[in-house]
Amino acid sequence: MTVLVPYRTLLSTVAEVFAGRGMPADRAVIAAEALCHGELTGMTSHGLVNLTRLYLPLFADGRTDPLADMVIQTDLGACVLADARRALGLWSASEAMELACDRASRYGIAMVSVRGATHIGCAGHHAARAVPHGMIGLIASNCGGQRIARPPGGAAPMLGTNPLALACPAGGAHPFVLDMSTTVVPTGRVRAAARVGEPIPPGWLATADGTPVTDPAAFDRGDAHLLWLGGAPATGAYKGYGLGLLVEVLAALVPGAALGALSTDPGRDDDIGVLAVAIAPDLLRTGFAADAAALFAAVRGWPALDPAAPVSYPGWHEGERAARLREHGVPVPRALFEELRSVTGVCA
Amino acid sequence: MTVLVPYRTLLSTVAEVFAGRGMPADRAVIAAEALCHGELTGMTSHGLVNLTRLYLPLFADGRTDPLADMVIQTDLGACVLADARRALGLWSASEAMELACDRASRYGIAMVSVRGATHIGCAGHHAARAVPHGMIGLIASNCGGQRIARPPGGAAPMLGTNPLALACPAGGAHPFVLDMSTTVVPTGRVRAAARVGEPIPPGWLATADGTPVTDPAAFDRGDAHLLWLGGAPATGAYKGYGLGLLVEVLAALVPGAALGALSTDPGRDDDIGVLAVAIAPDLLRTGFAADAAALFAAVRGWPALDPAAPVSYPGWHEGERAARLREHGVPVPRALFEELRSVTGVCA
Repeated sequence: MTVLVPYRTLLSTVAEVFAGRGMPADRAVIAAEALCHGELTGMTSHGLVNLTRLYLPLFADGRTDPLADMVIQTDLGACVLADARRALGLWSASEAMELACDRASRYGIAMVSVRGATHIGCAGHHAARAVPHGMIGLIASNCGGQRIARPPGGAAPMLGTNPLALACPAGGAHPFVLDMSTTVVPTGRVRAAARVGEPIPPGWLATADGTPVTDPAAFDRGDAHLLWLGGAPATGAYKGYGLGLLVEVLAALVPGAALGALSTDPGRDDDIGVLAVAIAPDLLRTGFAADAAALFAAVRGWPALDPAAPVSYPGWHEGERAARLREHGVPVPRALFEELRSVTGVCA
Repeated sequence: MTVLVPYRTLLSTVAEVFAGRGMPADRAVIAAEALCHGELTGMTSHGLVNLTRLYLPLFADGRTDPLADMVIQTDLGACVLADARRALGLWSASEAMELACDRASRYGIAMVSVRGATHIGCAGHHAARAVPHGMIGLIASNCGGQRIARPPGGAAPMLGTNPLALACPAGGAHPFVLDMSTTVVPTGRVRAAARVGEPIPPGWLATADGTPVTDPAAFDRGDAHLLWLGGAPATGAYKGYGLGLLVEVLAALVPGAALGALSTDPGRDDDIGVLAVAIAPDLLRTGFAADAAALFAAVRGWPALDPAAPVSYPGWHEGERAARLREHGVPVPRALFEELRSVTGVCA
C-alpha cells in the first residue's frame, strides 16, 4: 500500500521537519532535497525511511547541531580543510561540493576535505551538484568510527560501508551518477529485506567460513557478515576491501576524521569524514561537453542482448524515475507516510 | 623451472633494452623500474612477460615514440593537461605522478591529465611514487580505444579493463597500494592461465547468458566474456561497470584521449588516457603521517580468523615480496629468461 505524494509537498514537508529541529530554512531545504533524492531515484534504503530511523534521533541525542556552520580550518585555494562541527551531513556534503565547484572554476580541480560530519545520505546526490556547473563531482564518505564490515580473514568488523560517488555531465541526457557502497550492498538493503522477510541473493552475507547466507535477519543477529564488493577472494574481495580502505584514506584519514580501525565508539557513526572533489574540464580543453554527450549517447545506443532492455549507465534509470516522480508524485509506503505525518502533522 | 636473477641485473638489462630502442637512458631506467615492479610484487601478468609481448612491438610498429617529450598543453598550476605524444607509458605515467607531486606540494592537491599515452604497466607502481613525498597518489588509466569488456546487458565489448590505483604512506611499514583492474581480473590473469592450461575460478568469465566459464582459452576464442568486478548484477556488476566508466571519465574523457565506446580502432590501445592525482595532507593538517602509520598498524594487528594468516591491506604482501626479491634475486621462468636474453644478449 502506497500513497502518492506530490514531490513539492514531500520536499517542503521534510524541510519543515528539519527546520522544526532548528536548522536555518535554506539549509533545511538542501537537506530535504538530499533525503528525498533516495525516494526519487529508487535508492529507498537511503530515503525517507532514514528520517525517523537515523536523522531525527541525531537531533534528539545532540549528535547533530542544527545551527553549526562548517568552519574552514585550512585554505590553500584549490584545497580546503573544513570542520563540519556536527552540522547535518545531508546539508554539509552539498555545501562542500558547491565550495569545491567554486574553487575548481579557478583552479581546474579542487578538493574540500571535511571532518566532523554526520551521515550524508545518498553520496551521488551531492556529487551530482557539480553537473549544472558543467563539472565532474566526486564524493566519498566513511562511516566515522562505526565498524560494519570485516577485512578479508578478519574476525571482527573494521570499516564502514564507505560509499563512493562520481557524477559527470552527459549532454542533454541524465547525468552519469555512480553511487555505490564499497561493500556488495549497503546495510540498508539488507535491513529492508529483513523488514519484509524476504530472502537476499547469495553473495551479500556469509558466515565466517564463507558460506553464503540468504536470511537477511542473520546480519543483525550477528550470524553473518556483510561481504565486500567482489564477494570471495577469488572474485575480488580484496578489491572491494581495498576500495573501502581507499575511501577511508581519502575521506577520513586526510581530514583527520574518525577511523573505523582506531575507533573509540565503534557502534556509532560520529565524526564522519567526507571528500568532495570537483573537476572543471572546460578549463583544460575545448570540446569536453560535446565529447561527454557523445560518450554517454554511444553507451545508451550500444548493441544490447535484449533489444527491449537497452544498455545503460549508472544514473540513467535513476534519472528517468526521478523525472517521472517529480511530475506524477512520489509513491510512499503507507506506514512510512503515517510516520512522516506523526512527526509533522502537515503532510498532504 | 626458474632462473634467479639479481634485481639490479634485471633492472639494468631491461633498461638497456629500452635504451637500445632509442629511449634516453634516464627514462629507460624509469620505464624498467615500472616493468620490473610486476616481477617484484608478484603481479607477473604486468611484468617481464609484457616486454616482448607488448612493449617491444610498440617500438617496432612505431606506436610508441622513444624520444617523445610529454608536452604540457594547459597549465593552471594545480591542474595540468599534457599530451604524452606516444612516449612509453611505463615512463610517462611516472613522470605525470612526479609532476603532480611537485604541484601538490604547493596547492595541496594536483591533477595531471594525460592523453596520447601508451600502456603504463602496473598503475600502482606509478601511484606509489607519491609515497616518498609523504603524499597520497592516485592513478587511473583507460585502455585507449581498445574494447575488452561488455556493459551489463550488452552484446559487444565497449570498455577496457580500466585500472585504478591508490597509494598512501603507512609509516615505516609497506605503503598501502591498491592496484586493480575494474574488471574482476585483468586479461593478463586469464591469458596466463590459458598459457599453462589451468582452469580459472567461476566468476571471471561467462557466456552471454551469464553461465560461468572456467576454461581460460574461451576468452580469446570469443566463447566467453570477461566479467566486471561484482560478477552478476545481483552482486554488484553495475558497480564494477560503473567503476570502469568512472576511470573512462576521469582518465580519458577529461584529457580528450581515445574512448572505447567511440573508438575507431577497437582492437588497439592507442591514445590511452591517464589521470595522476597527488594529495599532500601535511599541508592541510598536522599529524597525518602518524595517523596513517597508526591506521595501517591497526589493520595489520586486527583480530584474524586464522592467527597464522594475519589481516593485511593491499600493498603489504607485495611490499614483503619485493623486499625479499630485491635482496635475494628475482625468480624468472626459464622461457622468459631465454626470451630476455634473445632481445639483449647481456642478461646474467
